[in-house]
Amino acid sequence: MLGKLFAVGVGPGDSELLTIKALNVLRNVDYVFAPSGNNDNGLAINIVKNYINCPYILLDFPMSGEFKDKIKANAEIVYEKLSDGKNCAFITLGDVSIYNSFWYLYDELLNINKNLEVEIVPGITSLSLASAKLKIPIAQKDESFCVVPFGNLEIIRSNLFKTIVFLKPTKDTENLVAELKLNGYKDINLAEKLGMKNEKIGNVSEFDLSQREYMRIIIAKK
Amino acid sequence: MLGKLFAVGVGPGDSELLTIKALNVLRNVDYVFAPSGNNDNGLAINIVKNYINCPYILLDFPMSGEFKDKIKANAEIVYEKLSDGKNCAFITLGDVSIYNSFWYLYDELLNINKNLEVEIVPGITSLSLASAKLKIPIAQKDESFCVVPFGNLEIIRSNLFKTIVFLKPTKDTENLVAELKLNGYKDINLAEKLGMKNEKIGNVSEFDLSQREYMRIIIAKK
Repeated sequence: MLGKLFAVGVGPGDSELLTIKALNVLRNVDYVFAPSGNNDNGLAINIVKNYINCPYILLDFPMSGEFKDKIKANAEIVYEKLSDGKNCAFITLGDVSIYNSFWYLYDELLNINKNLEVEIVPGITSLSLASAKLKIPIAQKDESFCVVPFGNLEIIRSNLFKTIVFLKPTKDTENLVAELKLNGYKDINLAEKLGMKNEKIGNVSEFDLSQREYMRIIIAKK
Repeated sequence: MLGKLFAVGVGPGDSELLTIKALNVLRNVDYVFAPSGNNDNGLAINIVKNYINCPYILLDFPMSGEFKDKIKANAEIVYEKLSDGKNCAFITLGDVSIYNSFWYLYDELLNINKNLEVEIVPGITSLSLASAKLKIPIAQKDESFCVVPFGNLEIIRSNLFKTIVFLKPTKDTENLVAELKLNGYKDINLAEKLGMKNEKIGNVSEFDLSQREYMRIIIAKK
């Protein structure tokens, strides 16, 4: 019988932010697969290492041109264990719903066998942690909000949102912040290296924006 | 010495979706405060009841005109315990970052004492659970997305988003879905009574939209 695959969001970096469900799944599977490479840096596996009793296998998810081939090869590695009847977990930083490599793997696995049993276990997003650490709500009452990777100027200029959250704004943070201010976003707060030892949170005025940071989140409000 | 206040997101309805951190906090505080009344129906306290060892106190958060007075009265109840040196947790469905009564309570508490020690513990959002159950990503790669309570037609018509998530679309779901289809959103999926026994998830075509449902989430994609 084919094993079951769990896609487990392990939260943004603090192992205490694992859910009880994630813990129960990870303690009971036969293999844990974790992303390695430039979009994770092995963070996910470090979060769960002390909680698992089974072997783990790192899968490379490169951001470059060979992405599609790599995903296919990864799907075959995972499927081999599943077809041996092993239950497997694919762990991933944050939550599975947004900006997550799992979906590419999932598509490839469904190409191999569309009857595969898959369960997705949600995790804490970096948005939730940024809001918690900054003590700033993302949206209240009947407010809409949007989440934008990098600087989408059209959305900033649309005047449709009181709150915009930027994830991964690694490019040109200075220009992004200038554009936000031009469009009436006066309350701009940042979180950097969230959940890590050298994390920094606070008002945009306290940051050197000319430095590029991998884990930077902006919550901008009118 | 003043006690510490924890605002704890307990996730969307399944006690397994509590984080380890939430559990640790709830097991160690002196009092748990939970919302009651029409915006929660006691769901939050039911999620944690089996995990806590301390007394809990229900706080009424009415949606009506007396809201401001009630929040003030609730803040005084919480502050009384904190000023007795008791550590307290305010629990809340889902995550604290979006559409959460905690922020009103927080403002009132800061009015009483701006040096209050507060820690926010993030929780799983209903968005994350809806994506997980439907097995549909909310956003990938450099896609933006937005979260809209009720039907904001301006955002639907803006043509800025491939994905729109609607929370609490209790009003006129039929009209909302018609407007989405008109604007090119062809892949429309719903989750109802998420995390409850009679939960229903699937394509919009499988739902009777003339019925109004409290816990309805829509993920619409172009």
